[in-house]
Amino acid sequence: MAQICREFPDQFPVFVASLPKNNVPAALEEMERAITQLGARGAQVITSVNGRPLDDPEFFPIFEAMSKRYDLPVWMHPFRPGTRADYPGEERWKYEVWQVLGWPFETSVAMSRMVFSGLLEKLPKLRIITHHCGGMLPYFSGRAESLWAQLGSRSPDDSEINVLKSLSKPPIEYFKMFYGDTVLGGSASALRCGLDFFGVDHVVFASDCPSDPEHGPMFIREGIRSIDSLGLSDDDREKLYLGNALKLMRMSRIGKG
Amino acid sequence: MAQICREFPDQFPVFVASLPKNNVPAALEEMERAITQLGARGAQVITSVNGRPLDDPEFFPIFEAMSKRYDLPVWMHPFRPGTRADYPGEERWKYEVWQVLGWPFETSVAMSRMVFSGLLEKLPKLRIITHHCGGMLPYFSGRAESLWAQLGSRSPDDSEINVLKSLSKPPIEYFKMFYGDTVLGGSASALRCGLDFFGVDHVVFASDCPSDPEHGPMFIREGIRSIDSLGLSDDDREKLYLGNALKLMRMSRIGKG
Repeated sequence: MAQICREFPDQFPVFVASLPKNNVPAALEEMERAITQLGARGAQVITSVNGRPLDDPEFFPIFEAMSKRYDLPVWMHPFRPGTRADYPGEERWKYEVWQVLGWPFETSVAMSRMVFSGLLEKLPKLRIITHHCGGMLPYFSGRAESLWAQLGSRSPDDSEINVLKSLSKPPIEYFKMFYGDTVLGGSASALRCGLDFFGVDHVVFASDCPSDPEHGPMFIREGIRSIDSLGLSDDDREKLYLGNALKLMRMSRIGKG
Repeated sequence: MAQICREFPDQFPVFVASLPKNNVPAALEEMERAITQLGARGAQVITSVNGRPLDDPEFFPIFEAMSKRYDLPVWMHPFRPGTRADYPGEERWKYEVWQVLGWPFETSVAMSRMVFSGLLEKLPKLRIITHHCGGMLPYFSGRAESLWAQLGSRSPDDSEINVLKSLSKPPIEYFKMFYGDTVLGGSASALRCGLDFFGVDHVVFASDCPSDPEHGPMFIREGIRSIDSLGLSDDDREKLYLGNALKLMRMSRIGKG
């Protein structure tokens, strides 16, 4: 990635690091190398590590370093294996539901774990950009706000009530600390819903290239069309396309600018 | 339910049947009794039956009867057990994610199974009302449309490509055959997104009473507020509150109305 950015600075002005999260000391070392030596302006994490959740205490140093040492953002991409059946009695998955719906679901589950484990309480300056504009949170914000305000009411013991007491803010406020990207398959209506939830300062452009039927151009074109059809002010439009990303990466300009 | 409707016809003008789906012959018998003798104007199903998906061929006669014999709608409510951990290595669930996010996810998975198994192809007049306004489909309609247009591209053999070939319409068109209810925790922005997906003729009012922090009044009040804040025409508003439900149940009026 660093080499591509050096060779084609106009097309690839900046990159973020990929980390070996199954080995936390190695991840911290690679983070240091990528950011301080190669110029990465953030890191990507996947919503689970060999099936383990991101709020596992072993992974805390990674988020702590991104927040406190480097003050750079984390891009979170979902993953759910295609091997998991959707119904317990079945031998295999069907119809690629594991990816089309399962991936955004995993994003939302990972966000929930970061909120309720206290990760965002401990690292209030941590900036996490969620793929597919926040997974399920924007569309289910009313449900999330009202049901999680009663966390513990569906649980057999006091453990979840104590979780709620351990947080200093209502749960929904932590979910709004995340950022969303604009990747919603070109649906302007969904993007409007995502913007209403996160606010225009917490959404950044992304393309999801090349995962579309045209193998690249369609999601870029339709993503741009969805943003441009919302009737945003020039200022807000500029935030989505560039300004918010620059601020997240603490850069004043990018490329030729 | 029938007795409540007889005793309090103004408050409870009509009801739908609950069916013992773990026993299909008994379910068909109860459907007959509830509709023809007790006056039920539809039936409710849950998104899985003892862990089995609704597109299991054993359940087909239930949907076939609702569509062809009675021509009445099916309300589909999600379920996911609180016993299932969100990550494979964990002993128990945490933070009630299984319900807050897991239930709407299950709705979407059940819808997907009905689409791709050919259930809606075989029963094109079947009307299914999905809880939480379509689960994940409205917010992820762009993703669903574009990725499922390539069904099979992420699969190791031709079985999924053949599924796609077996459908006479693009997958997203079947998802639009469903109806959504208005239950989105009071989020007008989300409801707008749901209406944009299903269209104003395919959304019906529901309250989710009493699953809110006030144990009843809040979701009714906030649900009404979310509808009334959308700036709909009087005609469209009336469709959401009453007209669409009457049409689904094939009734010309309800209660004193």
